[in-house]
Amino acid sequence: MSLQSIKYSRGSLEILDQLLLPGQSKYLVVRGVEDGWKVINKMQVRGAPAIAIVGCLSLAVEVNPEEFGSKKLLRQEIEGKLNYLVSARPTAVNMKIAADELITLANELDKDENIDVAEMKHRFLSATEAMLKKDIADNRAIGAHGAKAILQGVTEAAGASAGSAGSVRVLTHCNTGSLATAGYGTALGVVRQLAELGKLEHVYCTETRPYNQGARLTAYELVHEKFPATLVLDSMVAALLRAKNVAAVVVGADRVAANGDTANKIGTYQIAVVAKHHGVPFYVAAPLTSIDLAIPSGDHIIIEERPDREMTHVGEHRIAAPGINCWNPAFDVTPASLITGIITERGVFKPAELNAAITKLLES
Amino acid sequence: MSLQSIKYSRGSLEILDQLLLPGQSKYLVVRGVEDGWKVINKMQVRGAPAIAIVGCLSLAVEVNPEEFGSKKLLRQEIEGKLNYLVSARPTAVNMKIAADELITLANELDKDENIDVAEMKHRFLSATEAMLKKDIADNRAIGAHGAKAILQGVTEAAGASAGSAGSVRVLTHCNTGSLATAGYGTALGVVRQLAELGKLEHVYCTETRPYNQGARLTAYELVHEKFPATLVLDSMVAALLRAKNVAAVVVGADRVAANGDTANKIGTYQIAVVAKHHGVPFYVAAPLTSIDLAIPSGDHIIIEERPDREMTHVGEHRIAAPGINCWNPAFDVTPASLITGIITERGVFKPAELNAAITKLLES
Repeated sequence: MSLQSIKYSRGSLEILDQLLLPGQSKYLVVRGVEDGWKVINKMQVRGAPAIAIVGCLSLAVEVNPEEFGSKKLLRQEIEGKLNYLVSARPTAVNMKIAADELITLANELDKDENIDVAEMKHRFLSATEAMLKKDIADNRAIGAHGAKAILQGVTEAAGASAGSAGSVRVLTHCNTGSLATAGYGTALGVVRQLAELGKLEHVYCTETRPYNQGARLTAYELVHEKFPATLVLDSMVAALLRAKNVAAVVVGADRVAANGDTANKIGTYQIAVVAKHHGVPFYVAAPLTSIDLAIPSGDHIIIEERPDREMTHVGEHRIAAPGINCWNPAFDVTPASLITGIITERGVFKPAELNAAITKLLES
Repeated sequence: MSLQSIKYSRGSLEILDQLLLPGQSKYLVVRGVEDGWKVINKMQVRGAPAIAIVGCLSLAVEVNPEEFGSKKLLRQEIEGKLNYLVSARPTAVNMKIAADELITLANELDKDENIDVAEMKHRFLSATEAMLKKDIADNRAIGAHGAKAILQGVTEAAGASAGSAGSVRVLTHCNTGSLATAGYGTALGVVRQLAELGKLEHVYCTETRPYNQGARLTAYELVHEKFPATLVLDSMVAALLRAKNVAAVVVGADRVAANGDTANKIGTYQIAVVAKHHGVPFYVAAPLTSIDLAIPSGDHIIIEERPDREMTHVGEHRIAAPGINCWNPAFDVTPASLITGIITERGVFKPAELNAAITKLLES
């Protein structure tokens, strides 16, 4: 079965420590919000959806055994702790959205005179747990829509009469698989779906410096699944697209603006530029929760800059000259003009269609 | 003064041990050919021009104090020892070329009845020392031509009336500095020249996976020179060009074909694609010896693929998932269409002009 990075049952949460992969597969017990904040901030759990789910579940395990004297106290606890969790990785919008949803729920439950504090707690826990299930279901839907779009694109490029597409080679960046989500994965869910359809000829993954999520995590998942897979360095994408007949690039997203501009792991923008140059379709796979219509364009996304040490060291081993300055943006923004389609659990949208389509979906 | 990786005066040779960089800066005394063979074989000195020069100079320091009974004995000594030095790294073609040149010279001097053994030795030492001087002089000329071309490009881009250019930000890839040449450097020589002219606002260097020559060696040189410098990862070039107003990219070359297609460290092609997308001039800096008019285009250059381990490990530390396949081309080929100019010690040429210009230079 596919790798479990989040192990949860009511009152118990463990996460696979991604900083130790691939050398060690060690699960960390998350006893509450303090632990939740730490594992998110230290990037022991990563990937926007996984961060949101681990954050919310860390509150669930903390709240679970507690007895609250009043609904008001429970509501205060939920609001305060969720806002604290958002601060662990401010760029990860999914945590903020999930927090807002649960805070809204807590307010409603607090006002609803028909339920008592125990029922309020039960409903809060159920809502949080439903997020975990929904994420996996959404990822499967993303996988199905994405695989179809890629295969359709290949068929169309080959001419309308080409019939059904053969197997394809795809490239992905960073880690968007079971290790980044509640399970299955977004961009890697698309790869998984291609494999399930018998249409995956080969998958290439980039190393993804500085944290090497591609080499450590995606490669770990691909080996685990026994997919035909090859690791390349971040510098090799152009040479790869030129040499290896790659049919599509599919990456995840941390945040998609209303116009389709996409913030994602550093290096994504460069891959999009290189894909455009080689005429290779470039897809972003993301759940609707990663699409933020309140942000008109990528210009409004603030890019987190992280410490030099991530670049200058591998573990305790220094790999860069002492004294050199570093520029270490965690993300970059890929302009919508470079994106072929945005793959969501409700379908694949061209960037220009995104705003209207999502608005319609949210209204219906 | 600029970093000296080779310290030579007649009878004395020391080299900076590159295996200890950037952690330790330690010079090794090279007392003769045995030491020369070892430092080349153990890669304590690297970079094709540097290997050739250190090899030849190691023979020079050995021959210097000796008294030879006959020109024939000196000739035998030169030929035998140089052939032995070639065996230290048989793939380093510059050592072989330098050895052949000096052996030809020794044969000529041996046959010339007008000179005695002392004069023959003197001429051999002078010819060897001239290689060191010529490499540095060529690099200085490359630096001067390149800096001028970059500044001229900036002035022209700003409009004919803009007058002299202000300071510029440039990006370089891999290591092409004092540590890869006899001194000064090729692409890094251009950076040095910009600094000497007071026109270097900032230099960015890429990490250059898998061997991290940028992070280890170029960054070391830039820190040594106290240049305003910042290290970026290979995945960040597009984001950098978008954010930081970089005026030009300048890289080295392993081999330039007659049409201007350029084989260089893996990642160079990708940087060229990204530079084109952002309208940033992309220069290749290389001595005339790297331009091979016998190769019509880059299609004829065979790309060496190197072992997986270079990608999966840093020293003894595994950084990729066990079991993953790797694609590890050592070089890539940048098509001439992406290259603004090829900077040589005799001037800067557009790729389309290169063949005719070099042919003319070689004839004159």
